[in-house]
Amino acid sequence: MITRLEDIVDRARQGPKRTVVVPMADDLEVLQAIKMAMDQGLIDPFLLGPKKKIEVLLAQVGLVVSPDRIVDEELSTKAATLAVDLVKHERGAILMKGLLSTADFLRPIVNKDNQLVKNGLLSHVALIQSPYYHKLLCITDAAMNIQPGFVEKVKIIENAVGLLHSLGNSLPKVAVLGPVETVNHKIESTEHAAMLSQMNREGQMKECLVDGPLALDNAISMEAAHHKGIKSEVAGDADILLAPDLNSGNILYKSALFLGGSSAAAIIAGARVPIVLTSRADSSLSKFYSIALAVATFD
Amino acid sequence: MITRLEDIVDRARQGPKRTVVVPMADDLEVLQAIKMAMDQGLIDPFLLGPKKKIEVLLAQVGLVVSPDRIVDEELSTKAATLAVDLVKHERGAILMKGLLSTADFLRPIVNKDNQLVKNGLLSHVALIQSPYYHKLLCITDAAMNIQPGFVEKVKIIENAVGLLHSLGNSLPKVAVLGPVETVNHKIESTEHAAMLSQMNREGQMKECLVDGPLALDNAISMEAAHHKGIKSEVAGDADILLAPDLNSGNILYKSALFLGGSSAAAIIAGARVPIVLTSRADSSLSKFYSIALAVATFD
Repeated sequence: MITRLEDIVDRARQGPKRTVVVPMADDLEVLQAIKMAMDQGLIDPFLLGPKKKIEVLLAQVGLVVSPDRIVDEELSTKAATLAVDLVKHERGAILMKGLLSTADFLRPIVNKDNQLVKNGLLSHVALIQSPYYHKLLCITDAAMNIQPGFVEKVKIIENAVGLLHSLGNSLPKVAVLGPVETVNHKIESTEHAAMLSQMNREGQMKECLVDGPLALDNAISMEAAHHKGIKSEVAGDADILLAPDLNSGNILYKSALFLGGSSAAAIIAGARVPIVLTSRADSSLSKFYSIALAVATFD
Repeated sequence: MITRLEDIVDRARQGPKRTVVVPMADDLEVLQAIKMAMDQGLIDPFLLGPKKKIEVLLAQVGLVVSPDRIVDEELSTKAATLAVDLVKHERGAILMKGLLSTADFLRPIVNKDNQLVKNGLLSHVALIQSPYYHKLLCITDAAMNIQPGFVEKVKIIENAVGLLHSLGNSLPKVAVLGPVETVNHKIESTEHAAMLSQMNREGQMKECLVDGPLALDNAISMEAAHHKGIKSEVAGDADILLAPDLNSGNILYKSALFLGGSSAAAIIAGARVPIVLTSRADSSLSKFYSIALAVATFD
């Protein structure tokens, strides 16, 4: 049973090593996280980018990578395309963003010719370990989809549910967040929540329990939910929090980290391979956990 | 200098007692908070509602209120109107919601004939005390304005800045939150943030420093802001967080409480008198802090 981020590392350790392909790997902090994951026996690296610079940084980090696993490439767009090619030809299992723009990194991934996107939508899925919650809490989407409509939200839920399935949770509880518990036509998030909950009840979204709108307190606090008289299998025990939009998802994720002492792992879900896209602001431990999460999603 | 909620109680204690008018005061938890504030010498109560029921609850709470300060009234809409009349005739200084709907409570307050709303907009202002921040943090708007436009955001900032002025902070730092630090035409919150910041620089919003868009991490963590190379007097040291909308404001507030161990006080600002509108989910300590905050806002 996975209840802490360390459990994810344990799970990742149980399987075979996976190859992580990093376009523009000339990034000290990314290489530090790669080293941590190698030290734990989780991964092999495949590095693309300016070779000389990468080698200097590898020495700095104290990391030894065989020369045939470093491809010299100055251009970030080319490195990103090469990385996707490697994954398509099964020479890599995980993609991780190096020192290039998110747009350049994602372009070949979302390119339809490459058939890497499963249900038509990539989404950011974070797992946070909070001192104020009894299990890992999945927050989505904190980084990718700006103003998801109803159809996009179905896919965002599918991506997060799929991730938790792969971690052994066969019936994740999804709380669709809103600022109130009632459906209000002036608040679109509450309308979406009602539609998503009803779809789930009617069997259109399977292998999960969806309920909402739930305000955050009632999604994660049994006491708050009881106090408000809310009867729901999800309330107070959510595995997944679906944020109304990017504004609120980003704030929720960062609040858990910066106003809540949480640790986090995050991946981009929805592609045929897990994608690690950490930001400069993430700690190296958080980057390491994210790599471990990517490895752990393989059955 | 006010850095903790207890400092607000101290400040409230220094001034004269204020009369709190409570329509439909037949609510055990409201009366418990009223008792705490009376025990601290902060307030006198003026209770309206079903008298018999109120008296039973007063006995239960162990509170003695002189009979001429209890007005028998069965109808909540009438009690709300009476409460506003009392405030207009300076027989009360603070309004506090009892056991009636928020809509019924607010109707006579926002009624233009009563001239109680100062700049045309009421907004919810919460002060949270977080174990992860070095001072009190004001979050707005977590409860009232669903999708504030640019003009409404100016007023929401004015209301929060006015509150902090009244607590002795002469130049509050306002972080306008967004999911990114750049202006993006696909993300309205970032456009609003840029406009608000520029207005402030040009002197259109005075006696405060406004900057944004700032993601939450950069608004409240100096380390995160440095890491990202953000130069701003607000970043890492915000006094006020302006949320993009109700979805995100509500999530931010509740995350601080339920995923962050914060305590909170909150009032509705923008009226000629402070308004205490706590929700059933608030702890009695939080309700007490909210009453103290209302008292402390008087100069």
